[in-house]
Amino acid sequence: MIKTPVALAALSLLASTPALSATPAEQSADQALSGDTIAWDFLEGITTEVGHRQAGTEAETRGRVWAMKWLRANGFANVADEAFMMQTWVRGEEEAAIVAPFAQPMIITALGNTASTGADGVTAEVVYFPSYADLQAAPAGSLQGKIAFISHYMRRTQDGSGYGFAGPARWTGPGLAASKGALATVIRSIGTEDHRTPHTGGTAFPDGVAATPAGALSNPDADNLERMFARAGGKPITMHLTLTPRWLGETQSGNVVGEIVGRNPSLPPLLLACHLDSWDLGTGAFDDAAGCAIIAAAAKWATKNGQPLRTIRLLFAGAEETGLWGSKAYAAAHQDEPFMVGLESDFGADRIWRIDSNFTKTTPDLYGQLAAAVARFGVAPSTTPASGGADLNVMREQQGALVDLQQDGTRYFDLHHTPDDTLDKVDPVQLRQNVAVWAATVAVLANHPDAIVVD
Amino acid sequence: MIKTPVALAALSLLASTPALSATPAEQSADQALSGDTIAWDFLEGITTEVGHRQAGTEAETRGRVWAMKWLRANGFANVADEAFMMQTWVRGEEEAAIVAPFAQPMIITALGNTASTGADGVTAEVVYFPSYADLQAAPAGSLQGKIAFISHYMRRTQDGSGYGFAGPARWTGPGLAASKGALATVIRSIGTEDHRTPHTGGTAFPDGVAATPAGALSNPDADNLERMFARAGGKPITMHLTLTPRWLGETQSGNVVGEIVGRNPSLPPLLLACHLDSWDLGTGAFDDAAGCAIIAAAAKWATKNGQPLRTIRLLFAGAEETGLWGSKAYAAAHQDEPFMVGLESDFGADRIWRIDSNFTKTTPDLYGQLAAAVARFGVAPSTTPASGGADLNVMREQQGALVDLQQDGTRYFDLHHTPDDTLDKVDPVQLRQNVAVWAATVAVLANHPDAIVVD
Repeated sequence: MIKTPVALAALSLLASTPALSATPAEQSADQALSGDTIAWDFLEGITTEVGHRQAGTEAETRGRVWAMKWLRANGFANVADEAFMMQTWVRGEEEAAIVAPFAQPMIITALGNTASTGADGVTAEVVYFPSYADLQAAPAGSLQGKIAFISHYMRRTQDGSGYGFAGPARWTGPGLAASKGALATVIRSIGTEDHRTPHTGGTAFPDGVAATPAGALSNPDADNLERMFARAGGKPITMHLTLTPRWLGETQSGNVVGEIVGRNPSLPPLLLACHLDSWDLGTGAFDDAAGCAIIAAAAKWATKNGQPLRTIRLLFAGAEETGLWGSKAYAAAHQDEPFMVGLESDFGADRIWRIDSNFTKTTPDLYGQLAAAVARFGVAPSTTPASGGADLNVMREQQGALVDLQQDGTRYFDLHHTPDDTLDKVDPVQLRQNVAVWAATVAVLANHPDAIVVD
Repeated sequence: MIKTPVALAALSLLASTPALSATPAEQSADQALSGDTIAWDFLEGITTEVGHRQAGTEAETRGRVWAMKWLRANGFANVADEAFMMQTWVRGEEEAAIVAPFAQPMIITALGNTASTGADGVTAEVVYFPSYADLQAAPAGSLQGKIAFISHYMRRTQDGSGYGFAGPARWTGPGLAASKGALATVIRSIGTEDHRTPHTGGTAFPDGVAATPAGALSNPDADNLERMFARAGGKPITMHLTLTPRWLGETQSGNVVGEIVGRNPSLPPLLLACHLDSWDLGTGAFDDAAGCAIIAAAAKWATKNGQPLRTIRLLFAGAEETGLWGSKAYAAAHQDEPFMVGLESDFGADRIWRIDSNFTKTTPDLYGQLAAAVARFGVAPSTTPASGGADLNVMREQQGALVDLQQDGTRYFDLHHTPDDTLDKVDPVQLRQNVAVWAATVAVLANHPDAIVVD
């Protein structure tokens, strides 16, 4: 274990905080830990009464209406839907089957922004790439008329770093295969579990490369297809693939906002973000109704004992999953509005284990206060710079202050973008730990009078 | 812990078996425990090269052809396909969605032997029954024009007894609802996990009650529908349901058999059973390719050191899932052929923990030998009478001897009849323990000269 000066400073602050002299903010966070029902109320409500909230669809619109009603009912001010327009893709039929030599159906789901095979589907030989690097090494034109199979395996990590290693297979794999002539691409799901619940998600095609059909096989199906290559003795493996997604054209989405107004509204507010949209396969419980539930509940608990100095603004962003439409729209609309600090919750609902910021060196006293406020919930200090969540483009464009409350992502990619992202997966005890940590953090920040100097 | 005379007798036998004087049969079983590859070869092969093997379909036929080829390649004699005819039901389109008040899609799969809604589906109010008993209590005619929702919850048990408590909701629930006027039925999956992989399985309608459409919602969907009833404030909940299964009419299935011929073929043979068919959603790895893999591998290991006294016959039954067609056909064809004893493996591939027989009292010496032979693999003796597997109708009709090697079913109903019943779920270490226990058991039985007197 390496003890940096910052970590030591945080520890010394902890040592100087007697456990028996809890402040009102600390008491409130402790109450949230044991008894919060606000987050669950939001989370159960929106997943049950709305279900999925795919970006740009009427389901997302119903999600915004539901969330605004909930925010008003829970005492938030200045609740609004800040509309923006987007290009909307929706899924159609989804079927895959091995035709020869080992005929059998497979479970697949289309990736966002991909093209249709047409209703009759396509039949073609499958070319197997164990990893993204293997696909990169394939000669130009070598995939003409073929279906590329990228079986790049994702590893489970607490911090989600496995997504960075495996993600390119989805993010740019289909485009790379298309650039080498592939008529379609199937990938191993970017996910860490072994259920036949494939992981969707967006992909992008390079300029000048036409979108092709592309989908993700579930991990057990990808395993099976790998075994087929091992057993086929060099005989070609042929797949029939039917994916019929389509573009709806330009539709309306929106960012839902709400506030707890501070005693001094002229001070730059806190910006607490999450995203309200979800993929369509599950009900978007982990990704990301939980995030919205956590930040809303935390704002309530952090201000339970009195109006905060600064305004706390919630940003329930729209259309994150399909290209950060909401984040970009919010940044464009609010680029000239100063914010004190931005924080996002968008990594499920499991426990927070570390607090990062981008002002650890330059505003160490404040960072130390934050680290001390959350240490009793099992959250460690850190020297890793915060980078902010996907919906905080406005903060990055302003080069503003960021705090990341890092969640345990060990099982996040079991559920991410799958049909299994449903309410039953949320552990109420860990959800309350999130609310408590956020409440403690927000209480410190919302009552801090000074601007933050970032590293 | 209660020590019965039988258990004590078994223990005293154990005490008299010095660990260092292993017989050739014991050595062979120990080798199977550490190094069997036969079972995995079968299991990987059939799930990869054939996939699912739904009863009465061409996939099951391919499964029989594959299995016969494998049996011959592995040295089994008298390999044959004993054909029989059956009525065959196959699945069609499957869609469910809540229309009002909380519109969203749900994941459903049709139950075997059910009727079609027609391609346009049906839309009707859902009536909620928390348990099978609640449905039983519903007045006659009260479900006219409604969709019954039976949300009877299955509990996880090691011995599978939870299936007995929850199973009626599937086995007879749709028929009961239909008899009270329901136009369709949806049930909570008879399963113990929380994935959006619904559990199919057969159901039966009473005489005089026309089959209706019926399907199983995944557990997370059933949870969600329950929450909707709690949140709807008495407003009706309306579902649109499309299930289009159909009957193919009479098609051919078959029982695959193979033998290791004994030194005295005139003695009644052992009958080792499993079933080769599976439901269509997964690849039938746990249910029941594993069983066929275990009995075949065990027959090989049990005879590794020489020809057994008695013939060992394998019965890979067809069409178990859709109504024990193969078991019934085998009993009809072989009712006059005496068997020494019957055993079946059809409860997944997790470890064996107990040995039961139906001759514990009447042939205690042999039972004691069996109990002693498997004790070193962690298998306990028992006074519970064996009842035999589903494919051993022939033994029950003959009132013959039975041995049940009880497997750990703790996670069996996570996978049972779902898309998730795939090879990756099989633990190779526990699979080998099964092979070793079976090999030790078969070695004792196949070299036992006397007939068994049953209790």
